[in-house]
Amino acid sequence: MKRPSIELSLIGIGTGNPDHLTLEAVKALQGTDLVLVPLKGDAKADLAEVRRTIISEHVDRAQTTVVEFQMPVRDAADPDYRGGVARWHDAIAVAWRREIEAHIVRVGARHVLEVAVLVWGDPSLYDSTLRIAERLSGVMDVHVRIVPGLTSIQMLTAAHVIPLNEIGESVLITTGRQLRDGGWPDGADTVVVMLDGETSFRHIAPDGVSIWWGAYLGQHQQLIVEGPLQEVGQRIIEMRADARRTHGWIMDIYLLRRSPRQG
Amino acid sequence: MKRPSIELSLIGIGTGNPDHLTLEAVKALQGTDLVLVPLKGDAKADLAEVRRTIISEHVDRAQTTVVEFQMPVRDAADPDYRGGVARWHDAIAVAWRREIEAHIVRVGARHVLEVAVLVWGDPSLYDSTLRIAERLSGVMDVHVRIVPGLTSIQMLTAAHVIPLNEIGESVLITTGRQLRDGGWPDGADTVVVMLDGETSFRHIAPDGVSIWWGAYLGQHQQLIVEGPLQEVGQRIIEMRADARRTHGWIMDIYLLRRSPRQG
Repeated sequence: MKRPSIELSLIGIGTGNPDHLTLEAVKALQGTDLVLVPLKGDAKADLAEVRRTIISEHVDRAQTTVVEFQMPVRDAADPDYRGGVARWHDAIAVAWRREIEAHIVRVGARHVLEVAVLVWGDPSLYDSTLRIAERLSGVMDVHVRIVPGLTSIQMLTAAHVIPLNEIGESVLITTGRQLRDGGWPDGADTVVVMLDGETSFRHIAPDGVSIWWGAYLGQHQQLIVEGPLQEVGQRIIEMRADARRTHGWIMDIYLLRRSPRQG
Repeated sequence: MKRPSIELSLIGIGTGNPDHLTLEAVKALQGTDLVLVPLKGDAKADLAEVRRTIISEHVDRAQTTVVEFQMPVRDAADPDYRGGVARWHDAIAVAWRREIEAHIVRVGARHVLEVAVLVWGDPSLYDSTLRIAERLSGVMDVHVRIVPGLTSIQMLTAAHVIPLNEIGESVLITTGRQLRDGGWPDGADTVVVMLDGETSFRHIAPDGVSIWWGAYLGQHQQLIVEGPLQEVGQRIIEMRADARRTHGWIMDIYLLRRSPRQG
């Protein structure tokens, strides 16, 4: 059987509000042959529900096959962080390929197969999807297209009704790990912290620093807190722990801003 | 006449592709009483055309009044940059207020007036709209809501099909002015440069630096160039000058990435 070329669309779907889809994303979903839906276990069932809402509203099941598959799990205990991430991406690429090949067997020979993968937020920001897609290019005839989606950064600033940047000033986007290991980063008085499972703001001097924190952004459980870090830091730590216990999972993000020309 | 309270929605509309509207933005436009459309002169007529397309597709003119008004112009020669920007924002706030008050006189007393302002990109990133809206709060009963939109950063990475960040690494968003005055900024090996009218990448050492450049992102004139800065920098400078002459205006953005652990 001739192997079709794959038009692979990585579709950013925002952070949990189905209305955050762009019209471009809706059109991309409507035109696709196969939608791959990675499952990440039961803990994030709320997120799976949002994804299901999006699919049921915008995907015509008569035209489009929707395939759910269990995501391989990253070995978080691997002391080799980069190597561990690379091996995890390899495993996910194998899973994608298996689903795509199985679909080709099911539907038979075609010239082009349109495949879509739904991605939380935007496929370009702290997301693995693009790197996984690149791995497929070595073994299949794949053309990758990104359909951008709203990031949690945009959801955070919208929820707090604040600008991301001070006028004419820089903004650093970084990770909890970087903040924990390096303290307040060089280069900016506004810092957005993502991928932080450990409220790493505890590790910086709170003097003169304000925080805008948000969790479950765009979803009905949304929580936001803002204020001087010294005053609200502890409250965020407790609220985060409570919410995580209640819902079984949490995704959060925060913006730190310090008075300029310090440190 | 009783003055209504104003529900003011700042609606991010992306960078020029009408399909980049989110479903939330479409709903916000459909429910509004008044849409304010700032005009910025003839040079950017292409942009005005995109905005008109959005309005004609999504706004019901029987329900919603659309008001175009000339934007006050910032005095770019003002040596006091921050003061000049503040005075310019004051003038724009006065223009908004004038249009809203005129509309209230036209339609008569109501409890709540829904007003929408269309904003290129996202209202939180290098945009004045939120700061102008805050000025209204002092003189009117205004509640501000942000409807986030795609930024040119997302359009740039999507057009080049690249991730914004290296795995686990930071990203600095900055301005042409900062790059020109300060050289490669501290804090990140990936730098996104916005608000740059002068191809300021000329002022940094190109060794080991790659650039991903884009102009008119999302529009039919879209241009993108990528490569080692040493090899493609001059080509971008010339292409940018040509395109600006041809179209009468240009909006561009670029990402610089250097090999880590340098400088």
